[in-house]
Formats: sequence, C-alpha cells, structure tokens
Amino acid sequence: MLGLKDLSAKQINLIIQEAFTYKKQFSALGRIKKSLLDKTLLTLFYEPSTRTMTSFNVAAGRLGGRTHNVSVSASSVQKGETLIDTVRNLEVMGFSAVVIRHSHGGAPQLAAENTAMSVINAGDGFNEHPTQALLDIMTMQQFKGDLQNKKVVIVGDIAHSRVARSNIWGLNTLGAQVAVCGPATLIPKGIEDFGVTVEHDLGRALADADFVNVLRMQYERQANQNFIPSKREYHRLFGINEKRLAKAKPDLLVLHPGPINRSVEISTPVADGKQNVILEQVVNGLAIRMAVLNLLIGEKA
Amino acid sequence: MLGLKDLSAKQINLIIQEAFTYKKQFSALGRIKKSLLDKTLLTLFYEPSTRTMTSFNVAAGRLGGRTHNVSVSASSVQKGETLIDTVRNLEVMGFSAVVIRHSHGGAPQLAAENTAMSVINAGDGFNEHPTQALLDIMTMQQFKGDLQNKKVVIVGDIAHSRVARSNIWGLNTLGAQVAVCGPATLIPKGIEDFGVTVEHDLGRALADADFVNVLRMQYERQANQNFIPSKREYHRLFGINEKRLAKAKPDLLVLHPGPINRSVEISTPVADGKQNVILEQVVNGLAIRMAVLNLLIGEKA
Amino acid sequence: MLGLKDLSAKQINLIIQEAFTYKKQFSALGRIKKSLLDKTLLTLFYEPSTRTMTSFNVAAGRLGGRTHNVSVSASSVQKGETLIDTVRNLEVMGFSAVVIRHSHGGAPQLAAENTAMSVINAGDGFNEHPTQALLDIMTMQQFKGDLQNKKVVIVGDIAHSRVARSNIWGLNTLGAQVAVCGPATLIPKGIEDFGVTVEHDLGRALADADFVNVLRMQYERQANQNFIPSKREYHRLFGINEKRLAKAKPDLLVLHPGPINRSVEISTPVADGKQNVILEQVVNGLAIRMAVLNLLIGEKA
Repeated sequence: MLGLKDLSAKQINLIIQEAFTYKKQFSALGRIKKSLLDKTLLTLFYEPSTRTMTSFNVAAGRLGGRTHNVSVSASSVQKGETLIDTVRNLEVMGFSAVVIRHSHGGAPQLAAENTAMSVINAGDGFNEHPTQALLDIMTMQQFKGDLQNKKVVIVGDIAHSRVARSNIWGLNTLGAQVAVCGPATLIPKGIEDFGVTVEHDLGRALADADFVNVLRMQYERQANQNFIPSKREYHRLFGINEKRLAKAKPDLLVLHPGPINRSVEISTPVADGKQNVILEQVVNGLAIRMAVLNLLIGEKA
Repeated sequence: MLGLKDLSAKQINLIIQEAFTYKKQFSALGRIKKSLLDKTLLTLFYEPSTRTMTSFNVAAGRLGGRTHNVSVSASSVQKGETLIDTVRNLEVMGFSAVVIRHSHGGAPQLAAENTAMSVINAGDGFNEHPTQALLDIMTMQQFKGDLQNKKVVIVGDIAHSRVARSNIWGLNTLGAQVAVCGPATLIPKGIEDFGVTVEHDLGRALADADFVNVLRMQYERQANQNFIPSKREYHRLFGINEKRLAKAKPDLLVLHPGPINRSVEISTPVADGKQNVILEQVVNGLAIRMAVLNLLIGEKA
Repeated sequence: MLGLKDLSAKQINLIIQEAFTYKKQFSALGRIKKSLLDKTLLTLFYEPSTRTMTSFNVAAGRLGGRTHNVSVSASSVQKGETLIDTVRNLEVMGFSAVVIRHSHGGAPQLAAENTAMSVINAGDGFNEHPTQALLDIMTMQQFKGDLQNKKVVIVGDIAHSRVARSNIWGLNTLGAQVAVCGPATLIPKGIEDFGVTVEHDLGRALADADFVNVLRMQYERQANQNFIPSKREYHRLFGINEKRLAKAKPDLLVLHPGPINRSVEISTPVADGKQNVILEQVVNGLAIRMAVLNLLIGEKA
C-alpha cells in the first residue's frame, strides 16, 4: 500500500467497503474476526507521529495482531544502516508487514522493492499518505454516497502536503472535481496538469463545494518561513470559520486530517460545530487501517 | 479517578478491598479474571515516568487488556493540539480509559469533563496523585489495620508534592492524624486549614508517629533552588536514618513513593532495613491499579 | 544469562539445540508452545538498540509472553535511582525476567546478584553480549557442524567489542581456533593469554579461515578517534571485499552482528553476496532468544 496514484476505482472501493464492514462491528469488538493472530506488525517511523502510529496499533490489536513500534531516535538508522538493510532484517525477523513514515518521498517504495514483507506507506515526504486519503474518501462517501462530480476543495499548504497529493489521486480516480486553494507560494506550479483547479479566493472556491478538506499549517516543515503568512494573516485569508460557512452550501462538510491548529486553519466554532466530520475521520481511519491490514496480511477464511 | 479530595471513606475502602483481593491472586496469575479483554488503555504522559507507567501497563496486562503508551516527546501536543482535542480523538479511537500525567494541575479534570472515556490521574502538577496515595494507604492498612487516630508524618517538599496532597485528603478522610515536616520554605502557608499539623523538628514529629511517608526531593521541579538546602544539609535536617528511627516508636514504618535518593531523604541502612515497606508499596501499587481499572472499565460478571 | 565465560560446552550446546528446535517451527508459528503465557519480560536498555530489543520482543511474543520496554531516556535512572533499586522494584512488580543493556561492564551481574528475577545480558560495556555470540555460534554450526578445530577470524575493533569477547569465550569452549585481526591500537594487550592468535595482516589471517566474524566499526564508542583509521583507510586494511574472499577458502563464511556499515567493514558485493550469512544470523537470533527465555522462565511441560 504505497499510494493512491496507481490504484483503480475498484481497488479503492474494495478497501473502503471492507472498512465499512469493520466499522459496523465496532460496537461489539469481540465479534471481529481475529485475522492477524500470530502476525506481527512493525511501525517504523522516521518522523514523529502519535495519531497515525496509534491508529495502526489499535487496528492491528483489534484483529488480534501484535505491534512493535520503532521510532527513528531509538533506531539503528543512526548507526548508519541503510533502509534496505533495515527492512531485510525486519523481514527475516518474521514481521508480516511494516508501516513506514519517512521524510523522504519514495522511501516506502524503495523498501517494498527490497522485501517480501507488505509495506504500508504512512506518509513519505511530500509524496503520499494513502491511508489518510482513504479515510477522507470513506468519510465523504459515508455522508454523500458516490463522489462522481462532487466538488472537493483542498485548502492550505498544497506544496508540502502528502495528504493533498493522495487526496488528489484518489478523488480524481473516483470522478470527483478537485480544487486546491492556498497561498500562491504554497501551490505547486503545473498542478493543473493533474486535473485540479487552482483557486486563490477561498470564498469563490467554497461557493459550490460539497467538501472542504482543510490541511494543517505545518510551520515546522517549511524551509523558508519568510514566504509564509503569519497565523493571523493565514486565518484571515484561508481559515475556515463560521462566516465562510454561512456563504457556502448549507451541507458543506469540513474535513481535517488533524491535529488541528485552532484559530489558524480552522476556527473553534467550526472545529466544534455540526458541519465538521473530523472525529468521524478518526473512527474511519481505524476501519481503513483494519481493512488494509486484513487485505494485505490477514488470515484468509 | 481524578483525586482523593472528593472520595468518601467508603469509596476509598472499596478500592483498597478490591486491591487486596487481587493481591491474594498474585501467586497464581492464571486465575485472575481477565476483565479487560478487548479493552485498550492509553497512557498519556506529559512528564517522564517509568514506574507509574510500567505499573499501569502490568496491571492492565494482568487483566487481559492492551496498553498503548504515548509520551509527550513523541506526541501531537508539540504540533499545537489542545488537550481536549487529543482526548476526544483518543475516545473515538476506542480507548476505554486514558491515564494522564501532566505538569499542570487540573489537566486530567479538564480531560474528564470533555470525554466519555474514563480518565485516571497519574499525577497532575502539584495537585494530586491518587493511585499513589491509595497504595500508600493500602500499605499502612496492611500492616496496622484501621488508620483511625494513627499518626502519619509526611516529610519533605510538601509545597511541590502531589503525593503529599493526595495522602492528606485520603488520610484525613479515614480519620488518621496527619503531620507534615520539612524546610519552612517548602511548607505551604495555611496548610493547617486542611486539618494538618505542621512540625519543623523531625525528631519531635516522629516521636509518636506510626508511619513516616518520605517524599522524594525533586530538585528538578523547584523554580528557585536558592531556597533549598543542599543534599547533605537536607539529610542532616530531614533525612530518615537509623539514629532517628532509634528515637521513634519501634514499630514506626517508613514509606517512600520511589525512586529513592539514597543518602538524601533516606539513608541506605533504612532503605535496606526492616522498618521500610517501600517494595510492598510497589506490589500494592499494582493491585491498586488493577482495582481501579477493573472498577472503571472492567467487564462486569 | 550473563555471559559465555562461565558456560560449559554442554550448556552452550543445550541452548543451541533448543534454538534449532524452535527454528524448525517458524514456518508454522501457531504450533509453537506458548510457554511464556502470563509471563512478562522487561527490556531495560541504558544504551539505544533497535535490533536486539526488537528480537527479544518478537521472541517473547512468539512464546505467548508480554514485553514492556524501558529505555534510559524515559527511565528513573535520571532521577538518581541506583540500578539495584530499579531491579528490585521490577522484581516485585512481577516481571519474570529483565533484559539489560548497559554501558558499564558488569551491570547485569550486579543486577543479578540483587534479584531473584532472571537477568539476561544484552550487552554490557566492553564485556559480553552472550545471545549475540550464541547466535553466531549457532549459525556457524548450522553451516559447518562441529566447530572443533574450525578457524574463526574476528576482524575489527577487538578492544571495544563485547561481541568479540563473548565469541572468544564461547568458541574456545567449543574447541574452535580463534584469531583476531584489526588495527594494532584496537587489539587489547595480552589477549593471547586467552588462547587467541593475533594477526595484523587480514590476508594471512583469512588464508585458512572457515569463518570471519566482522565487527561493526563503532565510531561512536571510541574515546580517542585520533588513533582510529579513517573509514576508507579502514576498508583498505581490514574491510571484507570480493578481492579478499577470492584469496580465501571458497567456502569461507562471513558473519556480521549488524547493523552493517557498507563500504567500511564490509563491501556491498560481499554484504549482498552468497558467502555472507548475516540474515541467517538474524533468524537464528530470534531462535536463540526464544530458547534462552524458555529455559529461564518458560512454563515446564
């Protein structure tokens, strides 16, 4: 599971259907088939993350699997070992799958080419974050069914967002209309070639939107902060608040991958309001990760 | 389980009775009812801790539960997320309970007000550390039964000690006499209003004491170390050593929440001697945490 | 399990036989007897390690045991607690065994003398790393049977290598001939007294060798790097590459404890070639650790 770029609509929908099936069983966890018994999952995170790592841990646990977590600071990476050697070692140690987060785009692909283990990309540089996009899409489908011709606006730092890229690939494949909106310096040149509309005015972008997927402002990631608006300036131009929602379609839904910066990319009333589906995304993230794990390494019935 | 301040004697004794029941089963772990099957516990520690975190992990494991540990350094806190948002996310991820340690007093209360999950306070600022006080009280009861009118001297940095505060609430509720003793700069003004006697001479304080609960000198916590005695000076004035024990009641018992600083708040002969019950406290800590977890989230028979 | 120095050939072979038995069951994990049910293992690492810690975690998991990992940075060591107090606390918390890695030689021994728990040395200073040597020996036996009179060359920084020391004790006990080779500054004086041959020319050392055990250059460990050759210089003099293999016996096998520094102590063609058994060592490491855990704390049939 390296990215959504090369997945077909059929494949995406298969994963999401499986996730909906798991989600129905959440109220009675004991009934979920333990398809990962005697399977062990490794999370190998070269960048810190609580949310995604925790979600994979819980997902594996619900399927009866064991998880071992390795973060870069405690890792042999620091001892000079190559990623390929690390992955080969993990494979012979008997891990069934490895979940990789890495600051370099392409790292999970490189790992996958050099191991028989299943490799799951949990975010690689500015490239992809496929399980995040799958849970975003699942959440959109949950509330509005088929996404064909639905309009999704992705707001924020598009240039440095793997969430944006994976959303674009997946939503395009499913026939949604995707628009991106954000500071001009944070929109990659030529992004229109990927079938995406660029909008610089958030009000206009939202006018006919069905969903707005609000990206985190990741101040820690940008190389040169001089070109980035202040938090207050950012909120004025690109923040999602009640005034903006009032001018959009009344059933516009607000998504956010979390963790949210209140009063920066999203106002507190919206973050706590009825139009956001942020916590539903978290629930769906668990279901998506269970589905991905089961499809990749689950014991077949 | 946020603190002992608002618990009745009946509630405190209920938890401790349950803990004694678990403790009897320690010699045959296989017999302990796995009341936490399919339950997942999260420990969310904004301050480092080995001891308490490990104790909760082992306690949950003995009841068949899974634990996931998040420490602040790897946490999304650093990404600007509020505690309330963090807790809401964890709740929808399906954790049954969260154990919180935080440098700000009141953080677990704030969390509890914003989630349906059970919240267990594992130490919040200078406020409370209820499971520590429960295990202290359990240990006192184990050796001397009913605490009514028993005298407990708490020695050390009372001002910055959540252990002291939780002990005071719990012991007062159970009818014990509590005295505090320590450097004048480390005794909060007005503490007598809570039914506590202040003593500045340790010898006098210990003369008729049944228990002395020795606090760690937490040099890392105090804002202005100028007002704090050196380690040697501290030991001379407030350290528990054999000379002091010789002048106290022969059955005086010495408690310490650990980890101990040998030759500072306690001498090595006392730390290794017969009158300390420090390791018994550790065992009882496990039992208390099992009891608390079972009462809060255990599958009812 | 503190070191190989005091183990007899019979004891070493017993562990390795048990490891071979486990290894045969790897293809059907479900069949492995869960002899560690209700047992909990603690790993207590005062130095960072991914590989060894992960291996112990997986090994315990396959036997049905639970593992709790404590690393120094999150540990109460920083709060001034002595190792002995830490270990006594862990014992009463109910851990069945503790796996210790420590920068001071002798730390696991000190721990073992002060606890009834089983203590497993996972590397102590420059002293021993017994499970590593056991897996090295197991791998040698797997490919060439009885080691009596087989020649093993250990190459690298002998002075600072606990892997070298444990190999020397174990291989001597089993009747192998051991030679060491490396920079003169990194060969301890008087090592010949332990029945080891010292060779300064790698070509001559390898000429009649059956195995070469290549140590990591641990640049982070050496006190004074001025006396250490550069990486390029090191590779020229002591690196294992195809040219060297061409001049040695055709069935010479190359071992390395990992993680490897490609182009320093081993060339990429050798690291990826047919004469190295590095990944087999990793597999055998799991089996050895399962055997050690089962022998020490496994439920007897």
